[in-house]
Amino acid sequence: MDPQDKRYRVIEVKQSVFAANDRQADDLRAELKARGTFLLNLMSSPGAGKTTTLSRTIEALGNELKLGIMEADIDSDVDAATIAQLGAKVIQLHTGGMCHLDAGMTRQGLESLDAAGLDLVVLENVGNLVCPAEFDTGAAKNAVIASVPEGDDKPLKYPLMFEVCDVVLVNKMDVQPYFTFDLQRFTDNVHLRNPRAQVIPISAISGEGMEPWYQWLRDEVSRWQAPADA
Amino acid sequence: MDPQDKRYRVIEVKQSVFAANDRQADDLRAELKARGTFLLNLMSSPGAGKTTTLSRTIEALGNELKLGIMEADIDSDVDAATIAQLGAKVIQLHTGGMCHLDAGMTRQGLESLDAAGLDLVVLENVGNLVCPAEFDTGAAKNAVIASVPEGDDKPLKYPLMFEVCDVVLVNKMDVQPYFTFDLQRFTDNVHLRNPRAQVIPISAISGEGMEPWYQWLRDEVSRWQAPADA
Repeated sequence: MDPQDKRYRVIEVKQSVFAANDRQADDLRAELKARGTFLLNLMSSPGAGKTTTLSRTIEALGNELKLGIMEADIDSDVDAATIAQLGAKVIQLHTGGMCHLDAGMTRQGLESLDAAGLDLVVLENVGNLVCPAEFDTGAAKNAVIASVPEGDDKPLKYPLMFEVCDVVLVNKMDVQPYFTFDLQRFTDNVHLRNPRAQVIPISAISGEGMEPWYQWLRDEVSRWQAPADA
Repeated sequence: MDPQDKRYRVIEVKQSVFAANDRQADDLRAELKARGTFLLNLMSSPGAGKTTTLSRTIEALGNELKLGIMEADIDSDVDAATIAQLGAKVIQLHTGGMCHLDAGMTRQGLESLDAAGLDLVVLENVGNLVCPAEFDTGAAKNAVIASVPEGDDKPLKYPLMFEVCDVVLVNKMDVQPYFTFDLQRFTDNVHLRNPRAQVIPISAISGEGMEPWYQWLRDEVSRWQAPADA
């Protein structure tokens, strides 16, 4: 009875936080739409390859789109240092132990980055398949990177993450021969959770399969910046 | 100012939850000590190999120790089904969206498992390197499984997880040739966070390196069951 009580109280607090966050996220998204800045929320497990994928993407799209990167981590600035070497506009956000970013923290990040005039800002969220899925950051779209070594059952075990995502990159396809990972089974598991999610197999290390991802980004940015229909 | 306010309120709530949880965890640990049941809290990223490592461990130690397994997941019972095939005593805990287990949830699990008379109970926590580290489950010891594909920088990025762990298994050593993972650098990064943590490289798939892990478990169970010194 006691643990039930405590869980109920915790959930109540979280729900009021969620409601306030949802309003802030909608406000932020509307401002970004007006400015023509497409914000992508990039999520994954620890070590799935978010930073390597981002590095490749900066190299590929840096000349055609004005890019900015926000690296979120519990601690350390390993990733921001990597991205800064590529000459991209980047800031590091420390969450102070928190397992996710919310819309308020994202807004602070955008202000520090000085995002005005940028076409595409990528928020590299904390490596975690649970909490980041619960908080709307104000992003235009959500992307998740899964990876071959994690196994093809992950959409079954982390359902909310795959429900909220618009696109799923399957990274580390170059090492598929060394793992028991079935791409069709993984894709079916994703579509059980979210029939609309697009699944793109890639290898950020080898560069294999990256072009459909770049094209997805180009199309989304261009749609975001197009004048709204009356 | 608004985001700062909100963060402060969230943290206050969490602290009162932590304090209540710490008391419940200490009570549970004392009861388990009196009963001679060693509870291990096993944590990792999604897909690092907790269930495969557990399966091997059950095969190796099932005849010498009375074992029980608690599988915690957001959703699905994939892992409990796998473990049940080995004939081990097992239950599945669903956290209802929560990213961790606390001491109250662990106690409920132990009651459902009917853990009386068991030497070793392993709690397979939610796959997550952030939240599970924040909540004392009442376990005697904490173990984390890292894996080669995740990279050797993870102790820098998820510091609390490596601070609270007593032993670190480094899984998937069989695929090390295909990744840029330096075991010495990883071990140094662990010891930056926690000089006392023991690091054991393994391959749960091939069985390589598992014996030191089994011996660690045997020693810990035997120490836990020894009469306390006066």
